[in-house]
Amino acid sequence: MALNAIRALLFDVFGTVVDWRASLVREGRALTANRGLEVDWAKFADAWRAGYRPAMERVRRGELAWMNIDQLHRLILDELLPRFGIHGLAEAEIDALNRAWHRLRPWPDAVRGLKRLKSKFIIATLSNGNISLLTEMAKHAGLPWDCILSAELFKRYKPDPQTYLSACALLGARPEETLMVAAHEDDLAAARAQGLRTAFVRRPREFGHPSGYSLPHDKGFDVVADDFNHLAEQLGA
Amino acid sequence: MALNAIRALLFDVFGTVVDWRASLVREGRALTANRGLEVDWAKFADAWRAGYRPAMERVRRGELAWMNIDQLHRLILDELLPRFGIHGLAEAEIDALNRAWHRLRPWPDAVRGLKRLKSKFIIATLSNGNISLLTEMAKHAGLPWDCILSAELFKRYKPDPQTYLSACALLGARPEETLMVAAHEDDLAAARAQGLRTAFVRRPREFGHPSGYSLPHDKGFDVVADDFNHLAEQLGA
Repeated sequence: MALNAIRALLFDVFGTVVDWRASLVREGRALTANRGLEVDWAKFADAWRAGYRPAMERVRRGELAWMNIDQLHRLILDELLPRFGIHGLAEAEIDALNRAWHRLRPWPDAVRGLKRLKSKFIIATLSNGNISLLTEMAKHAGLPWDCILSAELFKRYKPDPQTYLSACALLGARPEETLMVAAHEDDLAAARAQGLRTAFVRRPREFGHPSGYSLPHDKGFDVVADDFNHLAEQLGA
Repeated sequence: MALNAIRALLFDVFGTVVDWRASLVREGRALTANRGLEVDWAKFADAWRAGYRPAMERVRRGELAWMNIDQLHRLILDELLPRFGIHGLAEAEIDALNRAWHRLRPWPDAVRGLKRLKSKFIIATLSNGNISLLTEMAKHAGLPWDCILSAELFKRYKPDPQTYLSACALLGARPEETLMVAAHEDDLAAARAQGLRTAFVRRPREFGHPSGYSLPHDKGFDVVADDFNHLAEQLGA
């Protein structure tokens, strides 16, 4: 693979860089501990995440006007609270819970791996998360991005082709000089269709069930890595 | 002044964070040393910088289609080279000279001051420089931005009111929670008109002539600072 032309790395974030599920469970438990509420926060986290794609698709189809991810998360959260029997939270508490996504914790290898990769490449996010979410997450988790790029800048969500091309253009890199890094095949396939290079990172615990996890079906990715340090090794960083 | 509501700082970059003039002179001298060319690089740097505002105004008035600052710098550079008797440079050399703006060096206080400010606030650029320029500059100079924002994202140059408001919105901060930091009065006055707080930083050597430098005429800025450490002190960071 001619990966020596790579200058910039674009990272998917939810699931690829941060462990959204364990982070949400931790935040949820802290919220309900003092109230004696019984909530299955793992189920809650899964439902919250599951609501995200249909909500985003409604924006992508034009059924909903542009909303950023904070707004979509809140839309879903307002439906989930009664469904999970959570009542009586003050507006400030609901808002703070919604912002749990700003405080997601990185996978154990992520910060060290990103620092290694940063020493050789420009490293940037390319997430559907909004800029303030990604900025606060980076500050909270110590993620050393060179630049924070988001679907919010283009008012189009991944996997819209324009998100990948616009991100490359902003970084001054051609698609073939750019490596999209993600734990999700659909994201990488969409990036590849626009001429970007692709790196699949295995995150078998993203949905909490490592036993059901399998390698990608798609065999056409330029790199397959077990974590960010393994990615750095393969890229000579 | 009620500055305790401040959550985010937006920084002008050219002249406020980096010493564009001395940096360009250094780059220019390195380029011509081996060729025996006699160029007054201080005059060249001043002419390059002086060409920037009229070129940008042509974009702002709609006479030129949107061009980012790399493109505007190159437009000016192509006029300056013959005027200063510089001939025979290869395209790659001209391009590398144009990218001297990606390698501008920070004022001596800037990196330490920004690190202090970052410990308490979100710190972001709000520059007319394009994203790739600002990203490479940060990497080269060690500027620890939480987020890189640019007029390029809005396809409107400062002091267009929308640049300030859009930057606040992306950071999730209200204008009154945001402090615009600049060494230029017009930038700050435009930010203030949109409800942002303002900090004037003295950069008496920006144009190389400290003897002609005076304090701002405008007495309405929330903070006036000698450098970024002095700014950090005043903001309790």
